[in-house]
Amino acid sequence: MRFCPARALPGKRAPLSCGDVGDLASLGEFGLIRRLLEHLPATEGLGGPGDDAAVLPAMRESMVVTADILVQDRHFDLGFSSPPDVGFKALTVNVSDVAAMGATPRYAVVSLGAPAGTDVAVLEGIYEGIAESADEHGVAIVGGDTTGSPVLLLSIALIGEATEGRALPRSGALEGDFICVTGALGAAVAGLQLHRRNDQPARAVLERFPGLATAHRRGRARVAEGRAAARGGAHAMIDVSDGLVADLGHICETSGLGAVLDTGKIPIDRGVEEAAAVIGVSPLDLALHGGDDYELVIAVPRELVDALGKDISQTPLSVIGRFVAGSGVSLETGETVQPRGWDHFKA
Amino acid sequence: MRFCPARALPGKRAPLSCGDVGDLASLGEFGLIRRLLEHLPATEGLGGPGDDAAVLPAMRESMVVTADILVQDRHFDLGFSSPPDVGFKALTVNVSDVAAMGATPRYAVVSLGAPAGTDVAVLEGIYEGIAESADEHGVAIVGGDTTGSPVLLLSIALIGEATEGRALPRSGALEGDFICVTGALGAAVAGLQLHRRNDQPARAVLERFPGLATAHRRGRARVAEGRAAARGGAHAMIDVSDGLVADLGHICETSGLGAVLDTGKIPIDRGVEEAAAVIGVSPLDLALHGGDDYELVIAVPRELVDALGKDISQTPLSVIGRFVAGSGVSLETGETVQPRGWDHFKA
Repeated sequence: MRFCPARALPGKRAPLSCGDVGDLASLGEFGLIRRLLEHLPATEGLGGPGDDAAVLPAMRESMVVTADILVQDRHFDLGFSSPPDVGFKALTVNVSDVAAMGATPRYAVVSLGAPAGTDVAVLEGIYEGIAESADEHGVAIVGGDTTGSPVLLLSIALIGEATEGRALPRSGALEGDFICVTGALGAAVAGLQLHRRNDQPARAVLERFPGLATAHRRGRARVAEGRAAARGGAHAMIDVSDGLVADLGHICETSGLGAVLDTGKIPIDRGVEEAAAVIGVSPLDLALHGGDDYELVIAVPRELVDALGKDISQTPLSVIGRFVAGSGVSLETGETVQPRGWDHFKA
Repeated sequence: MRFCPARALPGKRAPLSCGDVGDLASLGEFGLIRRLLEHLPATEGLGGPGDDAAVLPAMRESMVVTADILVQDRHFDLGFSSPPDVGFKALTVNVSDVAAMGATPRYAVVSLGAPAGTDVAVLEGIYEGIAESADEHGVAIVGGDTTGSPVLLLSIALIGEATEGRALPRSGALEGDFICVTGALGAAVAGLQLHRRNDQPARAVLERFPGLATAHRRGRARVAEGRAAARGGAHAMIDVSDGLVADLGHICETSGLGAVLDTGKIPIDRGVEEAAAVIGVSPLDLALHGGDDYELVIAVPRELVDALGKDISQTPLSVIGRFVAGSGVSLETGETVQPRGWDHFKA
């Protein structure tokens, strides 16, 4: 059942529903859509009533499109993340993909599959989280689809806007470019690993560094930083979703270059060291291979690094190495580092 | 794992792969994406390399966005439809949604979830069908996502373009407008019902009228007809996906009107009468309540009907009733007709 809030919700956002409404089978699809729409921001001024499809104004700049599916117990775990966390992250990872192009997120369609026995409060919580991320990133949810499904899943497509000719691909890095990274790495995978261990030492670290769990549960998207990089003359960009080495490797492969990392410069997030001790790995391992950080890795001509750092002064920008002739990612010692991504079909 | 054929496939469409490559777990996600991309038309000239997201040129006109999820054994049955049928229909139903706005389909993102044990040939077949529909409708597949999932599913978002101010909503019908429908109704549900019975009489009708099975397996999208309606001054439009009464009911509800059908004028597809006899219902029942026809129901001012009929002369256009003050759908006898849609969460 498709829905288009552009028509269904012409006014302001309604207050969240409350009270126990039971499972999906008793509420029905129309009832579900009505309740879910209450959680989404109003989409006034989008130019059309929308029904079979949402109608949106023309875009003056280049259009950027991305899509992600999240499947329960593969991409999210309701034992660890609350429904609003799941919804927030589902939209935010798409926003991060658009940010990694140097673009601004604009419109999303959100499709949902759920078993008939699903507690409607879970689905409402997910939409609450989606709405929170949409608010934070200025995204209008313009439509979607709902269906029964043997597993709970969310499929989101996001449309963004990039200044004509300014979208930043993975493939544009040049030899000698500095490798820059925003923020700090390793917290999301540390939070996830500690949650999976769930022994006393793991719980103690999670309690001491609540940011570790938040990093995994919520994610972030560096939209302003991505736009600054596109504007500031960066050559290539990617977001860290599979891990620094894996994602930097994509820039190397598509740009026909190698990358040498200065491991001492890699910014490691708060609490990652303590988490690594409990998990039994090095903090650097978590920073090099942990996924879900959603920081940006940027190929920047060395003469432009300082200006970019000033432009995004609210966020740390670290120079962690440089692009060189060759292939693959290696450390300053000459040691090659292989990505340790996981394969979704084998997980 | 996201993919963007805009980068991955800069040349012409490669020939289809052949040979048995086994299941998904042994092929892996990268291998799958490489094989699937071979089935998609090339997307040269889309303006960007795409990676985290596809980059597309600015759209001069209004943008129209729709999304649909299809879940195995709920929306498609691989015992009845071949994998190319499933892929073809998955994209075509989205194209039909865009057509029902009077818009032209342009870009799609295709996300796929599949169990690890899925035969890769099934997934390749699905993409072959998607490519066939994309070719037919001038749609570029600009990206997507793949993931493991306990159930085979396809999630597609489609972006179209509508002349500014000309997108046709459901809500615009006026009292006195004629209710027009393109083509003929009832074949898709007749084909599905006969397949489900699968007894000797059902098989005999399917054999005599192969169009019944095709109607269900493939679907259609009336893009040119939808654009002609938008251009020709129609007031409201919807595609018949849930059944004529259900979908006409949406126009009534959103336009604040009733509809009176002239049942003798409702165009019934070839073979539907014979199918109805086997199923034990009236042909009119199948035409009134059968879903998946994807014909367009259009509210047309009476003085514009002839011109519209001439404009789309390749497709029959039938006047099947008119919009009146009141609510709901009734027959010329005064009898009210309730929709018999199904609820996806209860199915």
